[in-house]
Amino acid sequence: MKKFLDKDFLLDTPTARTLYHGHAAKMPIIDYHCHINPRDIAEDRRYKTITEVWLGGDHYKWRQMRTCGFPESEITGASDPFVTFKAWAETLPRLIGNPLYHWTYLELKNYFGITEQLDGKSAKRIYDKCNKVLARKSMSVRGIIEQSNVKLICTTDDPVDTLEWHDKIAADKTCKVKVLPAFRPDKAFNVDKKPFAGYVKTLEKVVGFRIAKFADLLKALDLRIEYFAKRGCCVSDHGLDRVVCSEASPRELDAILRAGRAGKAVAVADGDKFRTAVLRHLAGEYAKRGWVMQLHYGCIRNNSDAMLSALGPDTGFDAVGDAGGAEALAGLLNSFERAGTMPKVILYSLNQNDNEVMCSVAGSFQTNGSFPQRVQVGSAWWFNDHRLGMEKQLRDFANLSALAGFVGMLTDSRSFLSYARHEYFRRILCRVIGRWVEDGELIPDMKFLGRVVEDISFNNTNNYFGFGL
Amino acid sequence: MKKFLDKDFLLDTPTARTLYHGHAAKMPIIDYHCHINPRDIAEDRRYKTITEVWLGGDHYKWRQMRTCGFPESEITGASDPFVTFKAWAETLPRLIGNPLYHWTYLELKNYFGITEQLDGKSAKRIYDKCNKVLARKSMSVRGIIEQSNVKLICTTDDPVDTLEWHDKIAADKTCKVKVLPAFRPDKAFNVDKKPFAGYVKTLEKVVGFRIAKFADLLKALDLRIEYFAKRGCCVSDHGLDRVVCSEASPRELDAILRAGRAGKAVAVADGDKFRTAVLRHLAGEYAKRGWVMQLHYGCIRNNSDAMLSALGPDTGFDAVGDAGGAEALAGLLNSFERAGTMPKVILYSLNQNDNEVMCSVAGSFQTNGSFPQRVQVGSAWWFNDHRLGMEKQLRDFANLSALAGFVGMLTDSRSFLSYARHEYFRRILCRVIGRWVEDGELIPDMKFLGRVVEDISFNNTNNYFGFGL
Amino acid sequence: MKKFLDKDFLLDTPTARTLYHGHAAKMPIIDYHCHINPRDIAEDRRYKTITEVWLGGDHYKWRQMRTCGFPESEITGASDPFVTFKAWAETLPRLIGNPLYHWTYLELKNYFGITEQLDGKSAKRIYDKCNKVLARKSMSVRGIIEQSNVKLICTTDDPVDTLEWHDKIAADKTCKVKVLPAFRPDKAFNVDKKPFAGYVKTLEKVVGFRIAKFADLLKALDLRIEYFAKRGCCVSDHGLDRVVCSEASPRELDAILRAGRAGKAVAVADGDKFRTAVLRHLAGEYAKRGWVMQLHYGCIRNNSDAMLSALGPDTGFDAVGDAGGAEALAGLLNSFERAGTMPKVILYSLNQNDNEVMCSVAGSFQTNGSFPQRVQVGSAWWFNDHRLGMEKQLRDFANLSALAGFVGMLTDSRSFLSYARHEYFRRILCRVIGRWVEDGELIPDMKFLGRVVEDISFNNTNNYFGFGL
Repeated sequence: MKKFLDKDFLLDTPTARTLYHGHAAKMPIIDYHCHINPRDIAEDRRYKTITEVWLGGDHYKWRQMRTCGFPESEITGASDPFVTFKAWAETLPRLIGNPLYHWTYLELKNYFGITEQLDGKSAKRIYDKCNKVLARKSMSVRGIIEQSNVKLICTTDDPVDTLEWHDKIAADKTCKVKVLPAFRPDKAFNVDKKPFAGYVKTLEKVVGFRIAKFADLLKALDLRIEYFAKRGCCVSDHGLDRVVCSEASPRELDAILRAGRAGKAVAVADGDKFRTAVLRHLAGEYAKRGWVMQLHYGCIRNNSDAMLSALGPDTGFDAVGDAGGAEALAGLLNSFERAGTMPKVILYSLNQNDNEVMCSVAGSFQTNGSFPQRVQVGSAWWFNDHRLGMEKQLRDFANLSALAGFVGMLTDSRSFLSYARHEYFRRILCRVIGRWVEDGELIPDMKFLGRVVEDISFNNTNNYFGFGL
Repeated sequence: MKKFLDKDFLLDTPTARTLYHGHAAKMPIIDYHCHINPRDIAEDRRYKTITEVWLGGDHYKWRQMRTCGFPESEITGASDPFVTFKAWAETLPRLIGNPLYHWTYLELKNYFGITEQLDGKSAKRIYDKCNKVLARKSMSVRGIIEQSNVKLICTTDDPVDTLEWHDKIAADKTCKVKVLPAFRPDKAFNVDKKPFAGYVKTLEKVVGFRIAKFADLLKALDLRIEYFAKRGCCVSDHGLDRVVCSEASPRELDAILRAGRAGKAVAVADGDKFRTAVLRHLAGEYAKRGWVMQLHYGCIRNNSDAMLSALGPDTGFDAVGDAGGAEALAGLLNSFERAGTMPKVILYSLNQNDNEVMCSVAGSFQTNGSFPQRVQVGSAWWFNDHRLGMEKQLRDFANLSALAGFVGMLTDSRSFLSYARHEYFRRILCRVIGRWVEDGELIPDMKFLGRVVEDISFNNTNNYFGFGL
Repeated sequence: MKKFLDKDFLLDTPTARTLYHGHAAKMPIIDYHCHINPRDIAEDRRYKTITEVWLGGDHYKWRQMRTCGFPESEITGASDPFVTFKAWAETLPRLIGNPLYHWTYLELKNYFGITEQLDGKSAKRIYDKCNKVLARKSMSVRGIIEQSNVKLICTTDDPVDTLEWHDKIAADKTCKVKVLPAFRPDKAFNVDKKPFAGYVKTLEKVVGFRIAKFADLLKALDLRIEYFAKRGCCVSDHGLDRVVCSEASPRELDAILRAGRAGKAVAVADGDKFRTAVLRHLAGEYAKRGWVMQLHYGCIRNNSDAMLSALGPDTGFDAVGDAGGAEALAGLLNSFERAGTMPKVILYSLNQNDNEVMCSVAGSFQTNGSFPQRVQVGSAWWFNDHRLGMEKQLRDFANLSALAGFVGMLTDSRSFLSYARHEYFRRILCRVIGRWVEDGELIPDMKFLGRVVEDISFNNTNNYFGFGL
């Protein structure tokens, strides 16, 4: 029996161990997509309790606590942080086979030196110990980032954001990590969703002119892209429920904008036309500047009306969608290419059944000596971010593309302790490659494979995004 | 080489063996969903030949016999039961890697003490031996149930059923197994299928009033729910080809009912509106009474017109569907929740690609301290009921939810020998958990894991359904 | 660590090794579906460079070279064949985990005796060595076929083809391999695609009458079927993006034909009606003659307009589709059966998520003592033609059908060196069965299993197609 979570956790072959300890472990981290708050870095935030770090915003954990029957009052509504921690501690043992189990123990071990079993009985002891560790200087946000060997972080930011915290971080010579904004204009293209009308007003204020026509909206977005670019931004992100590729005339787009701006109901089909047109324009702008365009799709969000009213979005009531979208995805990328302005694109679907579609569509747009793997499939996302999902993503990528060029892992997280997920990913990467070697499916050229592991851990990301580290 | 079907069948690690022999094997069986005939229990039916038990109604086996080229006259149409048995015996060796292979040998071993290879050559010898064993007293229907350690069975019953056989069983003090009806009102909502008009007439007779309006239909169903509840029923089942979630006005529903009742053609879209409305009402009734609502979907049925005419439905001509339905599923459950009457729900899709959708949708409706795992995904169904399908279901469940709360296995079978499938499932469950432990992915807390295995084998089912065993 | 590509490549158990070396390896090859040019066999073509054989038409390799950033001028546009070879050599190491990696090394070893690592550094040495080997007499097209133990090849041919090269091969007593045409009438039913109008004119010339009505088209196709049948053809193939099953009146079909013939735009929905009607008619013709009908679907083709203009179709810009089609597939086969003329059918989807749908739909049409496994799922196709995809196909087939009746592998290739893929498949087949035996999931009846392996490697194909070898 392999020991739980020892230094060779998930490394089930000698080759995997060599690749991980000799190559992967030493590489710094670039976390090119996450949801942490830059203010926390600027102010070098400190935490009083482990509940704050772990359970302050992590809807992955909330969801499982609800699943195990804990009332909302102990999850998002507790006045005593220990109540929430204890509910989590009692939930954890029930999550056998769940990635939260691994992540939790990895974080306890790496940041708090705790290897004890966490459950209802040990909850108080571990809670106190964690809080004591959090009181150390080294456990401020920057301290955590530094000890995690993180060199660069891209946050996720709305076009209307002032990026003031990014400016403060950039001006602060004592801050060792590079923190860049990422451009996430979802609200600007979701013309068929409620917040649109209000959002346009905000955007108008930010850019200083009225957005009456579709062309105005694009102009406003261009100005904000420029604003972001000046702060070093080189990556964008787009959350779509489904991939879209619908044609519309300029006149139609103006009419749809007018309706959305006036707060009128906009049909989803019109929303899709609008989204397509915005995405096409943005793709061109990104391409010009060498930005990376991330597309996230394949989910159905806010499934419980009751809980959306009670807690708002992103609180643990989303699910995997199954709308597919092979034709739309190929059509959208084809329209980028036809316009002569194809950016680097990373594709993510929440439905892992889409892996082969994404990999093979990506393979249809590698043309004419462009950047290698210009279009590629991103690492296993959200509900797929577990050992099996990651292994599947790596194998599907390898089967249909050139794995050596993969840009690798990101946390997608709201917590500063989540850098352990990079370790988790790297162990799994070395496990997969190690297995091929041990099974005689790959030439055991350890020098080359070591470099591949280092590339996927760090160098590919650095080169693809052009971070210049 | 591991021995075929020895006591450690499928148990490939020491941990798996400890969990199975020390915990799973001793737990009684609750078979909460099956298609056996309660009359067979009431009358304590006996079988003259193994052909009767095995091949009298098992369309899984029929299908494979046809696939191997046997004519219908030797499958469902033989006058000599040995002809049919021999065809099956010759089919079996060709089913390498098929679950019928495992089930057949498990049943031969457990109930008949036969470990010999079954094929054309051994067919006569095994046929005679089985028939001799079937002549024993212990091999009556109740004898089989008792030796299988089955404590409770839920049959599958139409709302119009008198449940007379259930009454007889309940009145029979010598019957040791508890036999409860389950409410399966498919015919009452399939307004767009042929049998509807006739079915409404039958239902009218049973309830004693005319079903002219949609509200009458609901009233009739409520009366039958009450009738079932009085006989201890606490579980319902619904077979849908696709999940539905369509809105309709009361007036529309009345009109659709009128058309269906008159035997007129009803469009599938109208059928979907009707189904949605009936399901919503029923969900409320179930919630009030604490019943469990099972939803089966993802299949295409009766694909061969020729064979449907010749043999009727449920004879082996169905297949896996691919209509998906994430949005409809989330929408339907959301509408239950919005109405304030969300029952416990178990989801099953015949398409295992839907696992992640189901698990994550289920996770969106665990709210406010409701019963833990109130909505959950059921065990691998029908065409997925094999080692890989079961392992996948367990791993998908674990990745996205809290496996410790899973309500576990059922036979879904028409045969009393199928209780061996519970053993099959438990071995696979222990195999999966054992593998995690051996690979260092789980803390080897054997006491806790033993309890988890016992819970999934029996206790969770007992608690979730409220059987009170 | 297992040695890379030694004699036990992919054979990870003693049983697998026994099955492969004792049974699979010795069986001859029937390559019942490929895209090689019969002229090359007729003229016994010889190659000057390995670039010609490997990179002259293989869009699998082109795609990966593009993915690794090589410009088109070094892939399809090079004047110096070594430039292209070197680009491929530099691409190869990056394809860890990709089937091209395995195929390439298998071909180097089997045909050139090269076991050295291929990369940029060794490229020149290996290039020269390969070219030297290609200069040997034994490395003519026929030489390669003979040393590969290939007994029969079915090419892929358009109905208007004269089959002159097939005639020449048939007349050439020195040619040891049997080469049969296969009937691929895609252009005749794709009424909604550009080439249709021109194609009809060609077909008119070939048959000598005007195709004005739908019935004329069917008559023309029947004549060509007869023409092919006289040359020994007994297999057809049909490439569909999606499976279709749409009803249309004769009058509608005439109108659609008229539009297509006149080069007018035809809606996809009308194209589907047309395709359905043509396929139904053809199915009847095939059934009469005992031909096998292959259906390939589940892809989206020519995704890049730019590259389609530059290079034409089948150059590496296709992808996996996700349109599903369970109902249409069942409906189409049902309509064949209803017409009383159900041919043998082999189903292939490019989306491996369709495996269970295909297997279970196939299982719905095994009726009345027809040829065993009359309808069955073909081996893992194109993007799925890797170890994991093949294993999945074998396991899905086994789980839902009778694997012993599987007709096995084909190359689907444009290159004469691809026969190594049959070896690849057989190793994987023996690996899967060997694993079941070693894990105690299958009775270790090695004589029987040896025969099963031989059947799947050769005998089943020979019997199912009626090749009479």
